[in-house]
Amino acid sequence: MAEVDGIKPIYADNAATTALSEYALSKMLPYFTEQYGNPSSIHTFGIAAKNAVENARRTVAQAIGARVNEIYFTSGGTEADNWALFAACRLKKKQGKHIVTTQIEHSAVYRTALELEKQGYEITFLIPDTYGLITPEQIADAVRPDTILVSVMLASNEVGTVLPIADMAAAAKRYGALFHTDAVQAVGHIPVDVRGLGVDMLSLSAHKFHGPKGAGALYASIRVPLAPMIFGGGQEKGRRSGTANVTGAVGMAAALEESVNNLERDASHLTFMRDHLIAKLLTLPGVSLTGHPTQRLPGHASFFVSGVEGEPLVRALSDLGICVSSGSACSAGSGEPSRVLVAMGYEMLRRESKERAAPVRISLSRYNTLEEMDRIVSLFPQAIEIAREKTAALFSFDDTVFDE
Amino acid sequence: MAEVDGIKPIYADNAATTALSEYALSKMLPYFTEQYGNPSSIHTFGIAAKNAVENARRTVAQAIGARVNEIYFTSGGTEADNWALFAACRLKKKQGKHIVTTQIEHSAVYRTALELEKQGYEITFLIPDTYGLITPEQIADAVRPDTILVSVMLASNEVGTVLPIADMAAAAKRYGALFHTDAVQAVGHIPVDVRGLGVDMLSLSAHKFHGPKGAGALYASIRVPLAPMIFGGGQEKGRRSGTANVTGAVGMAAALEESVNNLERDASHLTFMRDHLIAKLLTLPGVSLTGHPTQRLPGHASFFVSGVEGEPLVRALSDLGICVSSGSACSAGSGEPSRVLVAMGYEMLRRESKERAAPVRISLSRYNTLEEMDRIVSLFPQAIEIAREKTAALFSFDDTVFDE
Repeated sequence: MAEVDGIKPIYADNAATTALSEYALSKMLPYFTEQYGNPSSIHTFGIAAKNAVENARRTVAQAIGARVNEIYFTSGGTEADNWALFAACRLKKKQGKHIVTTQIEHSAVYRTALELEKQGYEITFLIPDTYGLITPEQIADAVRPDTILVSVMLASNEVGTVLPIADMAAAAKRYGALFHTDAVQAVGHIPVDVRGLGVDMLSLSAHKFHGPKGAGALYASIRVPLAPMIFGGGQEKGRRSGTANVTGAVGMAAALEESVNNLERDASHLTFMRDHLIAKLLTLPGVSLTGHPTQRLPGHASFFVSGVEGEPLVRALSDLGICVSSGSACSAGSGEPSRVLVAMGYEMLRRESKERAAPVRISLSRYNTLEEMDRIVSLFPQAIEIAREKTAALFSFDDTVFDE
Repeated sequence: MAEVDGIKPIYADNAATTALSEYALSKMLPYFTEQYGNPSSIHTFGIAAKNAVENARRTVAQAIGARVNEIYFTSGGTEADNWALFAACRLKKKQGKHIVTTQIEHSAVYRTALELEKQGYEITFLIPDTYGLITPEQIADAVRPDTILVSVMLASNEVGTVLPIADMAAAAKRYGALFHTDAVQAVGHIPVDVRGLGVDMLSLSAHKFHGPKGAGALYASIRVPLAPMIFGGGQEKGRRSGTANVTGAVGMAAALEESVNNLERDASHLTFMRDHLIAKLLTLPGVSLTGHPTQRLPGHASFFVSGVEGEPLVRALSDLGICVSSGSACSAGSGEPSRVLVAMGYEMLRRESKERAAPVRISLSRYNTLEEMDRIVSLFPQAIEIAREKTAALFSFDDTVFDE
């Protein structure tokens, strides 16, 4: 990346995406230009590719405590989330049309639920507390005999809060609803075990744990006969057609293996950096923590900064060589306030509010250093100042626009 | 790959998948470990990634004569095909439930059509002639006022025949049906121009023209407001959510640019090798050509070999260091006879036939050489002999099984 004042920019937006690990890349490279066969082919090139994909499947399965035949490769977390929801509807067609999910879900679940609502499903969106937590009691209260699916994320992409999924999954079982968890932010960062969690389906995404973009997986328990979402050549046991993304699967598996093998050490390092950053930034006026103070992802620090809009703050930080985000990457630039934070009670984020305030998410990886945390801390006041000036200008302009 | 008698195996299954070009790989590499941002992020890393994706979109658009805002990135050709069919149903909901397609389509279209049939759509599957051709007249005869979509492939993956899509698309317009073409085998191999073809939607797949697996695109004319198939963060103008596969898009664009820039030269070379191979193999007893003799893809040679089953023949060739396929890669190992060839009139492929015969597909790339063609020709009789012995053994076993 372009240097700022001769210094490499700090990448601290790892909840949006991560650098591919050199280890994962080294495992992928042979499958681009040497062992480039189609895993469906039965000749030597095909067999080599098939072995690579099936070894990757075994590695991914082991990393999350699943069986090898419970892992389906997808093009990413979003496809996995969509698939889980649509498949549950197909599978439980006779049981009902009620789905329980939450206000804090990633758009991949949230907007799919809205689409299902349009198609005639009834969706209950549970409301989080101010930390972004949903309780097992909320699940127990929401499920009904006609509830076919409960989908709750394992960890929040926006505020890093880790949710008590095992207890929720138990609560969901009451009337036999399936339980899906979007574990895209959690896998590779905290221990994830599908049996311990008791979930029926779980989504993960390679590029959130230093694997390649364009690769993900859906875990579906052997008890869940997944309906296909993409039809064709019958790959992935006829459930997800399309030529396997061999390098995607190989890279995902290598990155996940590496992350899981180093999880404890990395988590300590990340938690230390995170808490250092949080302690320092909270001393700045107008800065407060969002999400749970302790029950959160190791590398995830999120804040609320008063008097600024998110975009000017992120741009000001970027100009100073610090790459972070305001809310999720997916909603960046949309100009929409964070649905998740509004649901958590941050009412001042609504457009109609006269108060200006913005979420800031600083998400770390094992490649960050404590020195970088100090650099972020030292440059933050300057960025806030620049952003407050820009916001004031925008704010008066906005008023004019609103008056029209 | 493992060498056979000290010689590198010949890869001649390029209709199944191709080697990634070194040029494409070189363009992809920086986006794995350096410019690894999420294109939805608004900081420097995000902007670099976004520029890469949008430049890739421009390159792909130019290569097929489309506008930049008519290209949607997908996880591959299969997803693009599924999307085209499902989107047409959503878009034309009020016009009817009749779809026209063909018996020779790739499973990505064929099985999606069967799924739509289950959902209440009426599908007309047009029957090809013995060359695998469908005529514009067949389209004109099949379309009705309630026809919402006609989907016909541009070139056959199994027999290489190139179809007269421009005339078909014109014929389909009669009652206002949308026209989709699966151009997965054609793009990068023969000139493809969406305006010249007059199609509304077109699918392509990167790994068929030396791009990476896991990347494809759907062209949809600006007149076609595509309904989304995957919901979430709103990427691809809200129509295909999920973090963009940056390296996939970059690699696809580079490979396509390279293929299109060298198309004429490569096509001459491929046609020369193909015709040499065809001429030589047709001198062998029991070997005949399938598909159109001249109106076919430059690197595509397909045959019918009597007295053998496909799998033993492909394995025998593989053991001799020649990697080809029997029918499409997707149906390899399924034990099912080729639906496409049966539709073309090769009745002896049916299970109940007492006669044994198998399709063989030899699909070349610019990396093949004339010397390799001669090696294929010289080893082919030996492979047939081995396969005939194995088939005879299998055949007698099959009889026993059938008698039960």
